[in-house]
Amino acid sequence: MHVPTFIERKRDGAAHPSAEIQEFIRGFTTGEIPEYQAAAWAMAVFFQGLTPVETSHLTRAMMNSGSVLRYPPGTPPKVDKHSTGGVGDTVSLILAPLLACDDLWVPMISGRGLGITGGTLDKLESIPGFNVSLSEEQAMAQLARLGVVMIGQTGDICPADKKLYALRDVTATVTSQPLIVASIMSKKLAESLDRLVLDVKFGSGAFMKTREEGASLAAALCAVGGEMGLQVSHLLTPMDEPLGWAAGNALEVAGAVACLRGGGPPDMVGLTLDLAEKVATVPRETLARWLHDGTAWKKFVAMVEAQGGDATALERITEIHRAPIIHDFPAPQAGQLARLDAGCIGRACVALGAGRTKASDAIDFAVGCDAFKKVGVKVERGETLLRVHARSENSLQAVLPLLEAAVTIT
Amino acid sequence: MHVPTFIERKRDGAAHPSAEIQEFIRGFTTGEIPEYQAAAWAMAVFFQGLTPVETSHLTRAMMNSGSVLRYPPGTPPKVDKHSTGGVGDTVSLILAPLLACDDLWVPMISGRGLGITGGTLDKLESIPGFNVSLSEEQAMAQLARLGVVMIGQTGDICPADKKLYALRDVTATVTSQPLIVASIMSKKLAESLDRLVLDVKFGSGAFMKTREEGASLAAALCAVGGEMGLQVSHLLTPMDEPLGWAAGNALEVAGAVACLRGGGPPDMVGLTLDLAEKVATVPRETLARWLHDGTAWKKFVAMVEAQGGDATALERITEIHRAPIIHDFPAPQAGQLARLDAGCIGRACVALGAGRTKASDAIDFAVGCDAFKKVGVKVERGETLLRVHARSENSLQAVLPLLEAAVTIT
Repeated sequence: MHVPTFIERKRDGAAHPSAEIQEFIRGFTTGEIPEYQAAAWAMAVFFQGLTPVETSHLTRAMMNSGSVLRYPPGTPPKVDKHSTGGVGDTVSLILAPLLACDDLWVPMISGRGLGITGGTLDKLESIPGFNVSLSEEQAMAQLARLGVVMIGQTGDICPADKKLYALRDVTATVTSQPLIVASIMSKKLAESLDRLVLDVKFGSGAFMKTREEGASLAAALCAVGGEMGLQVSHLLTPMDEPLGWAAGNALEVAGAVACLRGGGPPDMVGLTLDLAEKVATVPRETLARWLHDGTAWKKFVAMVEAQGGDATALERITEIHRAPIIHDFPAPQAGQLARLDAGCIGRACVALGAGRTKASDAIDFAVGCDAFKKVGVKVERGETLLRVHARSENSLQAVLPLLEAAVTIT
Repeated sequence: MHVPTFIERKRDGAAHPSAEIQEFIRGFTTGEIPEYQAAAWAMAVFFQGLTPVETSHLTRAMMNSGSVLRYPPGTPPKVDKHSTGGVGDTVSLILAPLLACDDLWVPMISGRGLGITGGTLDKLESIPGFNVSLSEEQAMAQLARLGVVMIGQTGDICPADKKLYALRDVTATVTSQPLIVASIMSKKLAESLDRLVLDVKFGSGAFMKTREEGASLAAALCAVGGEMGLQVSHLLTPMDEPLGWAAGNALEVAGAVACLRGGGPPDMVGLTLDLAEKVATVPRETLARWLHDGTAWKKFVAMVEAQGGDATALERITEIHRAPIIHDFPAPQAGQLARLDAGCIGRACVALGAGRTKASDAIDFAVGCDAFKKVGVKVERGETLLRVHARSENSLQAVLPLLEAAVTIT
């Protein structure tokens, strides 16, 4: 393949034949095609887009760049969820064990946090000993025993996506919808799922800022899933205030534990059930009961132990990871909380050390915000709107302006 | 500088501040900014363009990436010509010594051929011993002595352009007008010229296919020149049939020698004078006389000798480089030659080995086409329209269809 001609074709708005996309992804994965050519192509895609057919071809080529999970015959249907990412969203930690209580397998492959959206792997790793790097064989054994495994993208799964995503991240080509679609769906398709539910978020704390953008992405994701024989359903959910009570790794694990113990923030429980019923075989009432009667909790504890985690740490996770400074952030006036901006809160958490601005940044499990008041409630002047967990007085002071900007009281 | 933000700015259609462009070119030249980021940026520029001000900043930054020629005070005005490239265009070899007969210095830095457009350096190197790689010191000494030097872009001159052009060549970003403008003008400005004349070609054998594209490029080149204090004039010249009698390295040198001996193809002589009078201090008649009375020829011979070339080879250059097969290409019917397509002839010459499809290709000095009939003449059936000089019977046969496609007789 003459790569400049391939790039030129996309640059000039023409469509790539399937074989050409396959050859490009193969060459890019092996390193025969250098990164500078892939970068120029990705920018051409940013401007010219990909047709739904091209997006499917790209998704398939990326999926086939690595290994695809194979299950023994006669095993239960495989289901998973994918969220486009938000602030305080710990649904995966509740949903995965919950669905495994149903007669389903949940082979959940998650990512790390980047920017304001948290990462499931980071949250899991705040549990002492929890190992997200299982081999395919280990993951299969655990699925057979428990019906659920939560791991990271191994080197074997979609190496093309791994490489292309890293390149997009440094070349301003992350926000290309067809490239987002291919990246998400190639990994989910490599899990060989039967059903997938998507949580496509929009709002200040999400990647997509408007409902329209979210709907467009959801449609493109579902189209590729359908093309590839995967049953995909989706929810479009707002992300203008943080989900649940907390944002930050150990703080969010505490929230998930509360939900799995039958309590927890109602918005988190509600969204978990909304998503779960899209792929479960049992009705919503059964799923809700499993959250209340300890069934889901037992499954979660079993999974944590199976993956080397210290389950006794779960209910004291915020003591294990305790920030030196815990600051009550007061309401500047009395009135109704009209806005608690998820984008601002997310940026404050990153600044505190809970997230990454670049992939190589380390994570501070203890820091973040919690005890969020929810939008709509009445507050007194000086009443605590949220708590800040900071590593130092300096880092606390640094985020206060961001938090002030996050709040509107009317 | 955060490079992804820099790329994003251009991607989203905003303009770069001067300091940002400077920093980008500095980092790219040193290698701190990797090629994949420069490739993504170049593609964003392809789509979003650069403002005239940004183009000037880029030109200046690329010029300042290397050394800029400095002349002793009180030396004559420095002039040069740049052509956007055509088929059979050997004007530089005639023009440079001709202008040096005037009280002018001609520090001509040229390039190699790529694709259908020939390169002045390749033609010069078909002269046995001719050295195009002089040091800046050697070039200055020769200018002081002869008023003319013809060399290649040294590693010291515009290294940013060298690196960026090589990258654009493999990432489908060559055809971006502001990048073309910055590439051309940075090198010419590094020559510290007083006056520059541009030959902007359009037509099937040129880079720009239409007069409008050519005019747009010419305006952009002149704008940047003006901004940088250089006096730039230009001609827009058609390139639908080859210029002169020949296309191919030694064959074109023979044509240039004929012009410098007072003969040669009238279209080549005419264009040389048209361009020369834009920058000369003497009238056209004087320039024409210097071509006829041997003044320009003596200057050329002196330059060839000064640069190590064998001047005795000049008048037998097609014997020194003689292709094994010389084929008379006949008119397929009687009538008027309505079209002899420069693009087809150029591609045939590349296929014969006279040009390059990639920068690392070797050049065969002997091959090409000559004895072109000019458009408008009446021909008999079977009369020779041109001669093909080929290395082998196979390569001759391979180009005959291209040559057939080049001809229209009415």
